Amino acid sequence: MKARWLPAWLATYDRSKAAQDAVAGIVVTILLVPQSLAYAMLAGLPPHVGMYASILPLLAYAALGSSMTLSVGPVAVASLMTASAVAPLAAAGSAEYVMLSMLLALIGGVMLLLLGLLRMGFLASLLSHPVISGFVTGSAILIALGQLKPLLGIPAKGDTALELLLSLAARAGQLHLPTAILGIASVLALWSSRRFLARILQRTGLGAKSSEILAKLAPMVVVLLAIAVVAALGLDTRGGVAVVGQIPAGLPTLGFTMPTLAQLQALAAPAAMIALIGFVESVSVAQSLAVKRGERIDADAELRGLGAANLASALSGGFPVTGGFARSVVNFAAGARTPLAGAIAALLMAAVLLGLTGLFERLPLAVLAATIIVAVSGLVDLQTLRHAWHYDRADAVAWIGTALGVLVLGVEAGVGLGVAMSIGTFLWRASRPHIAVVGRVGDSEHFRNELRFAVQTYPGLLLLRVDESLFFANISAVVQRVERELDQRGDVRHLVLDLSSVSRIDLTAVEALQRLQVDLRERGITLHLAEVRGPVMDRLKLTELPGALARKPFLSLHEAVGVLAS
Amino acid sequence: MKARWLPAWLATYDRSKAAQDAVAGIVVTILLVPQSLAYAMLAGLPPHVGMYASILPLLAYAALGSSMTLSVGPVAVASLMTASAVAPLAAAGSAEYVMLSMLLALIGGVMLLLLGLLRMGFLASLLSHPVISGFVTGSAILIALGQLKPLLGIPAKGDTALELLLSLAARAGQLHLPTAILGIASVLALWSSRRFLARILQRTGLGAKSSEILAKLAPMVVVLLAIAVVAALGLDTRGGVAVVGQIPAGLPTLGFTMPTLAQLQALAAPAAMIALIGFVESVSVAQSLAVKRGERIDADAELRGLGAANLASALSGGFPVTGGFARSVVNFAAGARTPLAGAIAALLMAAVLLGLTGLFERLPLAVLAATIIVAVSGLVDLQTLRHAWHYDRADAVAWIGTALGVLVLGVEAGVGLGVAMSIGTFLWRASRPHIAVVGRVGDSEHFRNELRFAVQTYPGLLLLRVDESLFFANISAVVQRVERELDQRGDVRHLVLDLSSVSRIDLTAVEALQRLQVDLRERGITLHLAEVRGPVMDRLKLTELPGALARKPFLSLHEAVGVLAS
Repeated sequence: MKARWLPAWLATYDRSKAAQDAVAGIVVTILLVPQSLAYAMLAGLPPHVGMYASILPLLAYAALGSSMTLSVGPVAVASLMTASAVAPLAAAGSAEYVMLSMLLALIGGVMLLLLGLLRMGFLASLLSHPVISGFVTGSAILIALGQLKPLLGIPAKGDTALELLLSLAARAGQLHLPTAILGIASVLALWSSRRFLARILQRTGLGAKSSEILAKLAPMVVVLLAIAVVAALGLDTRGGVAVVGQIPAGLPTLGFTMPTLAQLQALAAPAAMIALIGFVESVSVAQSLAVKRGERIDADAELRGLGAANLASALSGGFPVTGGFARSVVNFAAGARTPLAGAIAALLMAAVLLGLTGLFERLPLAVLAATIIVAVSGLVDLQTLRHAWHYDRADAVAWIGTALGVLVLGVEAGVGLGVAMSIGTFLWRASRPHIAVVGRVGDSEHFRNELRFAVQTYPGLLLLRVDESLFFANISAVVQRVERELDQRGDVRHLVLDLSSVSRIDLTAVEALQRLQVDLRERGITLHLAEVRGPVMDRLKLTELPGALARKPFLSLHEAVGVLAS
Repeated sequence: MKARWLPAWLATYDRSKAAQDAVAGIVVTILLVPQSLAYAMLAGLPPHVGMYASILPLLAYAALGSSMTLSVGPVAVASLMTASAVAPLAAAGSAEYVMLSMLLALIGGVMLLLLGLLRMGFLASLLSHPVISGFVTGSAILIALGQLKPLLGIPAKGDTALELLLSLAARAGQLHLPTAILGIASVLALWSSRRFLARILQRTGLGAKSSEILAKLAPMVVVLLAIAVVAALGLDTRGGVAVVGQIPAGLPTLGFTMPTLAQLQALAAPAAMIALIGFVESVSVAQSLAVKRGERIDADAELRGLGAANLASALSGGFPVTGGFARSVVNFAAGARTPLAGAIAALLMAAVLLGLTGLFERLPLAVLAATIIVAVSGLVDLQTLRHAWHYDRADAVAWIGTALGVLVLGVEAGVGLGVAMSIGTFLWRASRPHIAVVGRVGDSEHFRNELRFAVQTYPGLLLLRVDESLFFANISAVVQRVERELDQRGDVRHLVLDLSSVSRIDLTAVEALQRLQVDLRERGITLHLAEVRGPVMDRLKLTELPGALARKPFLSLHEAVGVLAS
């Protein structure tokens, strides 16, 4: 008997999957430990907050989410957005800063849960892919630039790419050599292991898949090596290399802070943006992985799963979490079959917090910066820009505009600009409808664009096909085109609009068609409609337009020509 | 020989029109005098500013505009928006207030001229008709509520409908009885003359048209009567009734104030909104009148005409102007044939300023308030709401949202909300595309929706027609629908997408189709396309999709069925 209150994957759990889930859980944990510390640093938070955000949220998502392989927890872009939202309100690392970050997760979590209950998963489609890609790429570059500070030990400042670059250049002389050496060595080690390690391991006789997975664990090896070097040489105490420092051992205590009205007002907008962007990213990662195994993602379940994960994060001293790209890919490659892999990772993270925090106290911040830089370098997506440039310049402009928006204006303005460019591009195209003068192809019943085909036309009869639904933003362009065509042909007595491609006509457009009909009638021209789709006709019947027409709409242009061209 | 530098209407002027233009000019002037005083009061400006804005702007529009009958000058909505923009920056009636209002006209005028030179007249179509109607209705109610203060002599305060109502209720006890009696009597007189006067005059034997026009002149009669009453009873000096007061006689002096950078920053956004809304309103009035006589409106010429009118207003001490609805209708009904009627009105206004300003000094503000209230009551447009409710609830929601936005949040937020609702409604609909499973009608080559027609379907073959261009906001809905249909029919081997209604596919949608094709292939289902339009195919050829398909897109569903259903 299935237990109804259990998630479907658990109620039908098949023990044969357990070994694979366990391996994936261990692999993800090894990746998650340095990432959780690093992304907490990126968000301006003490390192243990990142670990807190890597326990309960994973369990909450396992209970409510729909992806079998998504790895939820701290991620780079949400951490950057957290820093961008909280930094103006509190000093980095202060108790208030930590509390405001928790509130961001709390507010975002409640919003996502509500949207999930309202089945608003379609919100994920409010951003076009070029805009998401441009946003993530811009964010990745901004994050990498920001991490040059701890990587090189330069006390630079700035929120935008330009400010950061200028500040880094101005203070390049203050570079801290031991820090920079550790940092750059880590970047090189991580980058080359990412690039070549899998192939090298494979040559030693390991299987292709095991090599891939082992290579992904390089960050933990680099971290442990760096800790050993720092300890051996005393780089932190004598060398002045900044390290993580004491991490409070033990599990997070559960707690709840009710936001004040002022905090709600200050945090609602950024919390909504972090939650929305995290949701969109998460769904696209989950979907791309699900497709590979023929699984399904339910966007509404994702809203609930991510909402619960953020609530859990807020209740256990964490900050905004979502599904991470790189970690989910590793989880998938390591063989995760169900969210049990995530639950195992959560338990292992708890074990680390209980017993192993001491190990990471001498971990240099420069090494964390290096893991961030190498991780986000994988998010830079020039391929989509290339595709967009090739396929449709408007999409490419939206990509570039969003990426530049993030770099020049900051992440929040970048998101706003991206949404505006997504919608703007679409409206711009829809307001310039393709309109064709059509004629009969040979002796057939088919009518085609007179510019693309050799077609027969009829004196006194103008046949126009509009390839777009009619609405307020394009109806005046349609009317203008009609008038231009009529001006060029002095003798038109009948105008037939072929509405075969029109699936909706809004009120503004209906009113304009009514005016056009009256206007044409006074000039001795009769307006006709043809090939009106069922749903469109249902609506037109609610207006006076059909009654004002000289004839019922024609079923086809063939019929119209038969009647009018005689 | 035509003089090329003259406007077309003047270069080809036919003297037979002169008498009609002169009559219309006189009629408009009689209406314009009280309106110019009233709208200046509504904008928070001294009364003579309204008269200044009624001279040069009319001449400028006559020189550059394209409407034969539009009456340009101060109007209610633009005056309300001027007050809303300037009131937070300067004390009402102060010299700075007057100067900032001039700057609004200057900045808006320059913007309109630039847009006109760039041929951006299509901007007029950025707002749907229900949104414009809701905006104007909300503004009219807000204006009327605001005018209750001078009408009743209650010293109330507030910018939004709620604030005004609460303040009026709280201070109802401070009502000034003589003022209120004058005000309410004027409202009743104006309202009943508007309602019944034309019919009464017609019964006395006057022609229908003359009766209409004479009835429109009631405001001037009420104004003159009120002045006589105030003078006879000394209501202003002894009774405490607020009157217009001294109006400086003489023509405005020309002058130019260069805005500072700070003023530009503060005024640019409201100036743009006033200019845009004024332009949209103006074009729709001009167009509805032009249609009646078979004339044409050129939106780009309107941008230039209104831009020049606002510049002229700014240079001669005025404030933002645009084409007024009520006045244009009177101008049209009074027989105006060309903009000469407007030019004549401008000259008559100049004559009033030169010799008759003394006459209006004892005009009670309550009477001006009454003329405003009765004038804007004509702008309340519940008919469009009714049409929208009947035709499409989403349009009705946009109407109500915009009207409430203006009333609750103020005019500027109302415009923003209106634009957002226009675009939101459109996106909402486009993201829910109509998708039909189609089948063959009888033995024909036609394929129709299986829910609307009795059609033949084929085992193992699913034919889907998508009635919308594919883009980021609807592609996931399409993919979900495909999967639902496939789940319901276990045996599908071929899926054919009929793209006859698809005029564009953006990059996000192409990528999703590519993923769908791979996903289906792994499940043993082959994806096919049919009836791909020429421009869409041109673009698809830039991607890998056509190469990945098992077959070239079918020219028709008939062909697809012939090949696949065998």
